[in-house]
Amino acid sequence: MDDEIATHLGRLLDNNNYVKKGLETEANRRTKLNVLLTQQKLPERHWSDKDIMWLIEYLSSMDYNNMYSKLQIGLGEREGRIYSSLVNQRHYGFAHGIGRSGNITEVQPKAAGSSIIYKLTNKLITDSLRVAGLSKNAAKASLLFPMATGMTISLCLRALAQQSPNAKYVIWPRIDQKSCFKAILTAGLTPVIIENVIIGDEITTNISEIVNKIHELRPENVLCIYTTTSCFAPRVPDKLVAVAALCKEYKIAHLINNAYGVQSKRCLGLISDACAKGRVDYFIQSTDKNYLVPVGGAIVASPNILSITAIGKLYPGRASFSPILDMFITLLSMGKVGFIKLLEERINHFNQIKLQITQISKIYPISLLNTKNNDISLAISLKNVVDKHVLKNLSQNPGSEKIYKTPDWIGPMLFHRNISGARSVFPGKTLEIDGYSFKNWCQHINNFYPNKENDLNNTVSTIIDINTLESVPYVNIAVALGFNNEDIEVFTSRFSKVLESVVGN
Amino acid sequence: MDDEIATHLGRLLDNNNYVKKGLETEANRRTKLNVLLTQQKLPERHWSDKDIMWLIEYLSSMDYNNMYSKLQIGLGEREGRIYSSLVNQRHYGFAHGIGRSGNITEVQPKAAGSSIIYKLTNKLITDSLRVAGLSKNAAKASLLFPMATGMTISLCLRALAQQSPNAKYVIWPRIDQKSCFKAILTAGLTPVIIENVIIGDEITTNISEIVNKIHELRPENVLCIYTTTSCFAPRVPDKLVAVAALCKEYKIAHLINNAYGVQSKRCLGLISDACAKGRVDYFIQSTDKNYLVPVGGAIVASPNILSITAIGKLYPGRASFSPILDMFITLLSMGKVGFIKLLEERINHFNQIKLQITQISKIYPISLLNTKNNDISLAISLKNVVDKHVLKNLSQNPGSEKIYKTPDWIGPMLFHRNISGARSVFPGKTLEIDGYSFKNWCQHINNFYPNKENDLNNTVSTIIDINTLESVPYVNIAVALGFNNEDIEVFTSRFSKVLESVVGN
Amino acid sequence: MDDEIATHLGRLLDNNNYVKKGLETEANRRTKLNVLLTQQKLPERHWSDKDIMWLIEYLSSMDYNNMYSKLQIGLGEREGRIYSSLVNQRHYGFAHGIGRSGNITEVQPKAAGSSIIYKLTNKLITDSLRVAGLSKNAAKASLLFPMATGMTISLCLRALAQQSPNAKYVIWPRIDQKSCFKAILTAGLTPVIIENVIIGDEITTNISEIVNKIHELRPENVLCIYTTTSCFAPRVPDKLVAVAALCKEYKIAHLINNAYGVQSKRCLGLISDACAKGRVDYFIQSTDKNYLVPVGGAIVASPNILSITAIGKLYPGRASFSPILDMFITLLSMGKVGFIKLLEERINHFNQIKLQITQISKIYPISLLNTKNNDISLAISLKNVVDKHVLKNLSQNPGSEKIYKTPDWIGPMLFHRNISGARSVFPGKTLEIDGYSFKNWCQHINNFYPNKENDLNNTVSTIIDINTLESVPYVNIAVALGFNNEDIEVFTSRFSKVLESVVGN
Amino acid sequence: MDDEIATHLGRLLDNNNYVKKGLETEANRRTKLNVLLTQQKLPERHWSDKDIMWLIEYLSSMDYNNMYSKLQIGLGEREGRIYSSLVNQRHYGFAHGIGRSGNITEVQPKAAGSSIIYKLTNKLITDSLRVAGLSKNAAKASLLFPMATGMTISLCLRALAQQSPNAKYVIWPRIDQKSCFKAILTAGLTPVIIENVIIGDEITTNISEIVNKIHELRPENVLCIYTTTSCFAPRVPDKLVAVAALCKEYKIAHLINNAYGVQSKRCLGLISDACAKGRVDYFIQSTDKNYLVPVGGAIVASPNILSITAIGKLYPGRASFSPILDMFITLLSMGKVGFIKLLEERINHFNQIKLQITQISKIYPISLLNTKNNDISLAISLKNVVDKHVLKNLSQNPGSEKIYKTPDWIGPMLFHRNISGARSVFPGKTLEIDGYSFKNWCQHINNFYPNKENDLNNTVSTIIDINTLESVPYVNIAVALGFNNEDIEVFTSRFSKVLESVVGN
Repeated sequence: MDDEIATHLGRLLDNNNYVKKGLETEANRRTKLNVLLTQQKLPERHWSDKDIMWLIEYLSSMDYNNMYSKLQIGLGEREGRIYSSLVNQRHYGFAHGIGRSGNITEVQPKAAGSSIIYKLTNKLITDSLRVAGLSKNAAKASLLFPMATGMTISLCLRALAQQSPNAKYVIWPRIDQKSCFKAILTAGLTPVIIENVIIGDEITTNISEIVNKIHELRPENVLCIYTTTSCFAPRVPDKLVAVAALCKEYKIAHLINNAYGVQSKRCLGLISDACAKGRVDYFIQSTDKNYLVPVGGAIVASPNILSITAIGKLYPGRASFSPILDMFITLLSMGKVGFIKLLEERINHFNQIKLQITQISKIYPISLLNTKNNDISLAISLKNVVDKHVLKNLSQNPGSEKIYKTPDWIGPMLFHRNISGARSVFPGKTLEIDGYSFKNWCQHINNFYPNKENDLNNTVSTIIDINTLESVPYVNIAVALGFNNEDIEVFTSRFSKVLESVVGN
Repeated sequence: MDDEIATHLGRLLDNNNYVKKGLETEANRRTKLNVLLTQQKLPERHWSDKDIMWLIEYLSSMDYNNMYSKLQIGLGEREGRIYSSLVNQRHYGFAHGIGRSGNITEVQPKAAGSSIIYKLTNKLITDSLRVAGLSKNAAKASLLFPMATGMTISLCLRALAQQSPNAKYVIWPRIDQKSCFKAILTAGLTPVIIENVIIGDEITTNISEIVNKIHELRPENVLCIYTTTSCFAPRVPDKLVAVAALCKEYKIAHLINNAYGVQSKRCLGLISDACAKGRVDYFIQSTDKNYLVPVGGAIVASPNILSITAIGKLYPGRASFSPILDMFITLLSMGKVGFIKLLEERINHFNQIKLQITQISKIYPISLLNTKNNDISLAISLKNVVDKHVLKNLSQNPGSEKIYKTPDWIGPMLFHRNISGARSVFPGKTLEIDGYSFKNWCQHINNFYPNKENDLNNTVSTIIDINTLESVPYVNIAVALGFNNEDIEVFTSRFSKVLESVVGN
Repeated sequence: MDDEIATHLGRLLDNNNYVKKGLETEANRRTKLNVLLTQQKLPERHWSDKDIMWLIEYLSSMDYNNMYSKLQIGLGEREGRIYSSLVNQRHYGFAHGIGRSGNITEVQPKAAGSSIIYKLTNKLITDSLRVAGLSKNAAKASLLFPMATGMTISLCLRALAQQSPNAKYVIWPRIDQKSCFKAILTAGLTPVIIENVIIGDEITTNISEIVNKIHELRPENVLCIYTTTSCFAPRVPDKLVAVAALCKEYKIAHLINNAYGVQSKRCLGLISDACAKGRVDYFIQSTDKNYLVPVGGAIVASPNILSITAIGKLYPGRASFSPILDMFITLLSMGKVGFIKLLEERINHFNQIKLQITQISKIYPISLLNTKNNDISLAISLKNVVDKHVLKNLSQNPGSEKIYKTPDWIGPMLFHRNISGARSVFPGKTLEIDGYSFKNWCQHINNFYPNKENDLNNTVSTIIDINTLESVPYVNIAVALGFNNEDIEVFTSRFSKVLESVVGN
Repeated sequence: MDDEIATHLGRLLDNNNYVKKGLETEANRRTKLNVLLTQQKLPERHWSDKDIMWLIEYLSSMDYNNMYSKLQIGLGEREGRIYSSLVNQRHYGFAHGIGRSGNITEVQPKAAGSSIIYKLTNKLITDSLRVAGLSKNAAKASLLFPMATGMTISLCLRALAQQSPNAKYVIWPRIDQKSCFKAILTAGLTPVIIENVIIGDEITTNISEIVNKIHELRPENVLCIYTTTSCFAPRVPDKLVAVAALCKEYKIAHLINNAYGVQSKRCLGLISDACAKGRVDYFIQSTDKNYLVPVGGAIVASPNILSITAIGKLYPGRASFSPILDMFITLLSMGKVGFIKLLEERINHFNQIKLQITQISKIYPISLLNTKNNDISLAISLKNVVDKHVLKNLSQNPGSEKIYKTPDWIGPMLFHRNISGARSVFPGKTLEIDGYSFKNWCQHINNFYPNKENDLNNTVSTIIDINTLESVPYVNIAVALGFNNEDIEVFTSRFSKVLESVVGN
């Protein structure tokens, strides 16, 4: 047929050469598709939007509801009918979702195209995790769920619970992010919160306390240890290797919340090591933060293919195709080269902004906390800013020394200067979630008093009782994937202005 | 500003009247939006695609990532960055999902536009349920989840479980649909399957057996009764009113799977009655089947506003905005008039196809089962078709009488004639799900032997032992929302041809 | 390659059948394209938008600027570069226009896809003219120009002038439409205006006056006779057959302005006859009015293939591809069946509205002029409406009898009631175009006094001197292609209201 | 209304601040529009695609066919109906074209939005010409025609002809580009071709021959002198100032073909000077080459507003809106900053590629002709390449010395290496256009023998008779707007390879 068409086109133009050359694009697209299907990896070079659209249309036309003619009729209760043409367009005709009668990974006969994309996307994701730095053994398989991270973690916890119906406890080193914690409750399990410890400026995992708890609750009652990698400084990634070793020793499952850790070599290295040296059952990452797609998907990965099969079977029913399509388009649109570039740019930006803050700290009384184990987020101590501000105000308004306790002080000032995402963390807020209480919420620890002397201007000796001291306030920023180079300068300038207005003369 | 612009435009055209008239569309759109926000109901008349796009763009421009300038920078770990412009386009720039740090119903400060659409869509959905026939009391509130029905039911079960942590049992009148059943297991609960009974041609709820089970398990151990409305004939909707009364009496929760029941006056009537006369906690409906959007959303509704608040709080974290946007567009695109028209057309199509089948049954030995309590799906007995076919084949191939046991016989023939969705149900298949065994899967009952004499050509007397009889095979069709008028004729013709090829001379 | 891809897809799904069925759409598209290229006619059935988009992308990818890679570089002064992605999108990547270095019909090597579409569209248009009712001999060939009708007529006149450089005169039966007349002046030729005659209610061609003029100017000085088909009643199509016979006899070219006549069987019949019995060089039709595309294209057709070749060669340079693409999409989108349906619906609407006006004329003193030779436009005499109105006002405001001379009286009233396109024609306006003066502009004749007695309520005898009478005012409406069925009722109601307000009690 | 909406939105979100901040984008858009309407100049900064789409939708909604409701009906023969939704979409609903009954610049009452865009675009274009370097006096006004350059020049010639009906001659310094020449014939005028002269390596205007011709034909018979700026080297822009002075002196019109000269400071400088010191009636530029839009528009500009009014009135009828919309979008999308950047980048690329060619000429026997008056195009002499090639071949195939006369030798080799646009110019081809004969077509001169000694290796003394020498072959390249930086390297490498294959060892 193709030859016949080419002949007709050549006759129409009176020139076969023009046609031959012209059809190279079509031929090239098929070659590219063939390579993609053969390798099932991120393409080396990114696909153009036109090429992606071509492939999407090619695959979309395989679904029943897009079939070539009105000859196809549907007598089921779900036939992929779409009312609005706007909706139809934005989904390129994909209507059936993924999965089949109660199994998200099963092929849907009415939707071969959707099914192909889902299978292929999972392969590309596994490859992308390796490209980002995970070991091959750690990233044995992965499965994309069209649910955000919290709900997906909840599902993973349920998958573990199904295997050990009598174990109720989830040991969880504290990380002050609501949905992570709520995921345990949603799964109907009992959280056991491990208070963190401070080492240098960093807040990190209290391994001995975990061991104590395992003994206290008895290993057979502990469903899993649920650790976290990506987090806001001065919290640093949990000690995954040590935890994984414990899990292996005590036969306890290990779930890792790697929310936005795909962009961090450090997080992926820890996971790779943990998989190699101990036990890891699932690690979960959000798609929006690591791949720059709209919120709505999470990747469950595992060093164990059977674990992935199990979680796939647990999910009851079909699911939205939309987050899958977003990932498919985005991965093709990045290609291996583009993804690596994005990851490297992030590191550069992170290092640059660190440098800038150090520069600012020479002018204003801020201090960058030394949290080298966290390579995404930074914390800038505001202690001396607060002190100076209080002193300044005291002279004018005697008795106003408590003014600095007003939470959320620098953050909102930045927010009003069109900087979103910078969080100022002031002690004082206690949050209650379903009966569980978190002192100084957002700090990840009841009292944050870093040991680093130069940060605190030598005013504190390490022998004093930390519990009597007030926690140190700081502001948090993150340099995440997709951060703009130009933003660094803007941040520097606006942050300086904010500091000037607070502590300037 | 608007006046200034109009003046400039008038000067450019040398004609203020043209401009005045031209700007009516813009003004009219604002009026329409105002009405929508005031009433928070389905608009009487549908909005055009252009008007919808205008509103979407208006609201999308409120989200931070779409802000008017590069002045806005982001220093958080999640700033709504989108890599692919194709992805950005298909989401109209909406990137933040819905919800905020662990609460799906909370307003997201970075995404005022998304938040507005989510809130508004939930209001429109509640109204649409009433428009479809639910009583005002039954449809007090509703919440759209960007997860398909199975997973959403699982979440509802978890919400109930949180309130009664010690009750483990879910009493479930059998309905042979995998994800419904799996939802119980995913939630970590214990299903108690109630075998149905046959009344006339219909398969329906065994109320007395439910009562027995409650007593047997003790009410305090029963988390809920989990009933179903929409189902394939000869299964009919569960006896909701009776169940609701039991739930009220024994203080047991009541969850209703109303998967595609919004399109059925009968299903909605039952729910309204059950809410009025007994206890209903949640009823769940899929968005794709009832509103013709792509798979991926489910509506949780309740006669109790607090129950909706509770389920909203349980969901851990953010979620995909995509299914919300689909619903928002679709509801505006339908309007009240359009939705009612769609619902009425379905009833007409259902009645017409019933008539056609009756006509066919005068020519071929099929028989339409009398399942008047099911107004979406029909079942056509193939018993005599099979008998005739066996006889015909026996004369040619003695000893082949078991041929009809080959499952999936008429259905696939229709499938190959481009009719999807028609399921032929032959006895014989036993399905195992996580240790639970379902005899004659797809039949919703271990043995299906309808009592209706004329269907069975008087060969069966009602006094015989039903367990010694073989179940009757039949083919199922559904006339669901969005069914095409022209499809009736196509179905009639192709079904006749299939029958002719099987039992013709 | 295709087989390899299918194999890979089958392996991915673990099911070759799904893939085989799924790829039918792709195969079907190629078959359809093959048929289109083989027949070069309107497809019997319309193509879906998705199929059209597939073909456009297929062909667009053949143009150099859309080539598969960045390997292609351009070192010319015109390389199809497009700055704005919005612009690129709306042209599907087509950037090169049509034609090559001074020849609009020549194939552009850098743009094989564009060239194919242009050639194919011209073939489809020729076929569509035949489908609409032109004889095969009349529609021998046609060429689409991306210029509107006026400019295209000007170009045709220049083509004729090039063949007869000494003939300057263009004999033109008056038709009061500016651009038609201006086309003569733009071409640098001298118009000779032939005043029309009234027969019954119709304004029509004065053949004997044309003969006189030919003799007066001498045939060798007359470049062509330039007639018109589609026009506003009471003007009717020119007597093409008689004119064509004269042209043949005197060896004068014949150009026909068939602006929106493709939708009229009557106009096409006249052209077919004129081509058969006399001389026709070119007939020109607008694309927007006959095919419902945006303004911007005109079709030059001829019974003589050489004439089409000549006009193609005359056009200097390239031209916009946009109007070509619009026609290509639209013709595929209509198909033969759809185009015929559209044509037939128009006739039905025309007949219905005639009926409605007759009904209204029983209530209000209007009268439908009898212009049976015009099957697109209608004229409704307002003479008695005006008289009645004057009488009514005279009683209140003595001396105001001239009020009815205010031009544009009923038309604007309809306009303000959201009816566009209805023109009220009142005598009195004289228009000057480049020194040529048209008395009672819009009437197509200096004095319009129809002879039809019943129209004028027997107040006028046919023997009176028509020049002393005042022209009769009327309102014009047209029932053109794409008119909506529902509009008839709206028009009836609003027109009645306008009349009621003017002459009601 | 806006306040009401904001209040409702605030209530829905329970937060007025979010809404206030969110609505800034909408407010900002209105401010931007107001500035645009007030200044009627290129916006300083480019508009984002979203902002442009917002404005287009705002203006599109003013056209009747997009009016807010079905209340609007049409009873004319042309009501902006569009059949295909694909077509409608790609034109954003704009259907009416531009102009009204025979006047392209008149406002169309049914299409206020289209009319506004047309008027505004003409203003923006005038400003852009000044931004590019034209003097304010030279760019008094401009008018965009939706026809490509050739046809537009033809129209301009007709406009001039209308003012001087008896002048037939168009004096035209030879430039070998078909459509430029054909434009004269299409306009029905008589071209008088002026053979160019060689000065150094450059081919340029023979002013004394023009003066001779004026005298020979008599000034009153000469309609205009029709000069050219942008052209392929070694042809350089005509001596506009000298010609303009002659035109002023002899009262002859002056038309300048400035096809792609907006991107050249040199061309614009010449025009500015010519306008200041002599007579210029119209200068015409193509939109595709100067503004990177699809082929299909041309800008007529003039130092005289009345001339622009005249040409606007001459155009008979409406015209396509599509090229206007492309320009409107593109100009907003560029902004002043973006346009200037584009212009500057081109100059950089031009200089870089010149450097590269000089480098190559150190390795291979090519020589860059010294054509400093042409700042877009370059010519590379192939004389020595050909000689060397001939010598090389002669040794192997005695008697093959004529092989180099095969035209199109290096160009096609580049073409096959995916470099389009490089033209190799070999003497020998004579082209006939409508009876006019051009020796050595593409050379712009009958014999091209540059005087530059080093180019010709000292083999030629300037006293020899140029007519007995064979013309020098060369290859042409242009560095036009939108040229890619990366392309320079690719060109260098491929050109070197081609030379290596031809003259390498």
